Amino acid sequence: MLYIVGLGLGDEKDITLRGLEAVQKSQSVYIEAYTSLLSFGVSSDGISTLEKLYGKSVTVADREMVEEKADAMLSEAQNSDVAFLVVGDPFGATTHTDLVVRAKQMGVDVKVIHNASVMNAIGVCGLQLYRYGETISIPFFTETWRPDSFYEKIKRNRDLGLHTLCLLDIKVKEPSLESLCRGKKIYEPPRFMSIVNAIEQLLEVEQKRGESAYDEETTCVGFARLGSDDQVIAAGSMRELLTVDFGPPLHCLVIAGETHPVEREMLSFFAVKQ
Amino acid sequence: MLYIVGLGLGDEKDITLRGLEAVQKSQSVYIEAYTSLLSFGVSSDGISTLEKLYGKSVTVADREMVEEKADAMLSEAQNSDVAFLVVGDPFGATTHTDLVVRAKQMGVDVKVIHNASVMNAIGVCGLQLYRYGETISIPFFTETWRPDSFYEKIKRNRDLGLHTLCLLDIKVKEPSLESLCRGKKIYEPPRFMSIVNAIEQLLEVEQKRGESAYDEETTCVGFARLGSDDQVIAAGSMRELLTVDFGPPLHCLVIAGETHPVEREMLSFFAVKQ
Repeated sequence: MLYIVGLGLGDEKDITLRGLEAVQKSQSVYIEAYTSLLSFGVSSDGISTLEKLYGKSVTVADREMVEEKADAMLSEAQNSDVAFLVVGDPFGATTHTDLVVRAKQMGVDVKVIHNASVMNAIGVCGLQLYRYGETISIPFFTETWRPDSFYEKIKRNRDLGLHTLCLLDIKVKEPSLESLCRGKKIYEPPRFMSIVNAIEQLLEVEQKRGESAYDEETTCVGFARLGSDDQVIAAGSMRELLTVDFGPPLHCLVIAGETHPVEREMLSFFAVKQ
Repeated sequence: MLYIVGLGLGDEKDITLRGLEAVQKSQSVYIEAYTSLLSFGVSSDGISTLEKLYGKSVTVADREMVEEKADAMLSEAQNSDVAFLVVGDPFGATTHTDLVVRAKQMGVDVKVIHNASVMNAIGVCGLQLYRYGETISIPFFTETWRPDSFYEKIKRNRDLGLHTLCLLDIKVKEPSLESLCRGKKIYEPPRFMSIVNAIEQLLEVEQKRGESAYDEETTCVGFARLGSDDQVIAAGSMRELLTVDFGPPLHCLVIAGETHPVEREMLSFFAVKQ
């Protein structure tokens, strides 16, 4: 059996009792390292916080390992219990569909243990989840690559009065261009897009496209470390949010559509103080 | 402090360690009874499963009690820790925004402990969460009340190639019309809309409106008791899903938009056997 266990958003205490049971009866435990694991006590020294809680060792699996060694992990799961831990929910913002497809093809039973993900936890700011349109992703712009296909989607959502969740780019274990040229892999340090960076890119695209999808005065909500004890949630115009110190990653951003009175009342509790 | 604790979707084991800690240090524990609590061991005999796990008594709070007695609960939370438990996530499909607004107005600190909700757990069928449009609700039709404003929303999502989550009506502790006329409250037995009922209503509306938002051959995914050990997930055309025995509530339904190859591969694992 392969258990795919969501860890939730905060730290090691956000696992469910059902998830903890699955981990404790598994012979091997892997944790995906596609996203920031810092709040889960996973550091370069190892993953002592989780291992202490679980009472067993945990192997950190980066994307490369999951892609290259999935078959070995799945073979193991044919004859014993294996737990694969993921931050958030197994099918939230980052999805693990490929792993499930491969498991099913190999005849491995898969059991998913759900948890909170950014896709539902953003509800905490008071904007109703059923009034969101399509979710978008904002990639890091480079000198030569400034894709803006998210712009139409935001415009469409806003024209319909719907809110837009913007997932912000994460670069973890990306081989550097230089190292690729030299034929050996050296990794760039991890990068996590900040809310300020995202808003700057959004405003740049609005200036270029000029279709008034949004502007500096558009109400947004910024979330940092959502679900953690030190989470920061701030509501205000794009211009106002540019002045907020949200602190360390992960960040995400919601662009509000039309808001109802109760939604506005909730947002006022998170309003940026000027 | 008022802790609003998500219980997740399955049973008492889906609480997080963080949530359990909050319950255990709270002086009073309430559980909202707006949705089905059967899988949480909450029956007419009481709520023994949860009480046994928590080691303390739990008060079932129906919508009426929360509306009428919220102030008493919040006053208590001004001077001690109170836990308010909700099925799923506190800000998932059913929202508790009003309670938070009242708490903040009374100066009560609120801490939200997230968990899985239907809004993110539907990701398990393989349809990507970021490709969903606006969520809709399908109400029980009566002889005289057959509202179909959800139709335009489905059409819009489908025109954009987006998936649509349909939340199905729940009637818990609704006063009967007869009892309201007689001036004393007698409650109707609880009703939970089934997938079959929802599809019948959807097809009736399509026939009436005739704008080809969907038809009998449109691919859908039905979910029953999502997140529980006995969950049922079935993918197929509306016509095919009408033949599936999904068993007891809760049910929800997804109407697929355009699907990508990996999405189709995942759906094939849940395909209705003909």
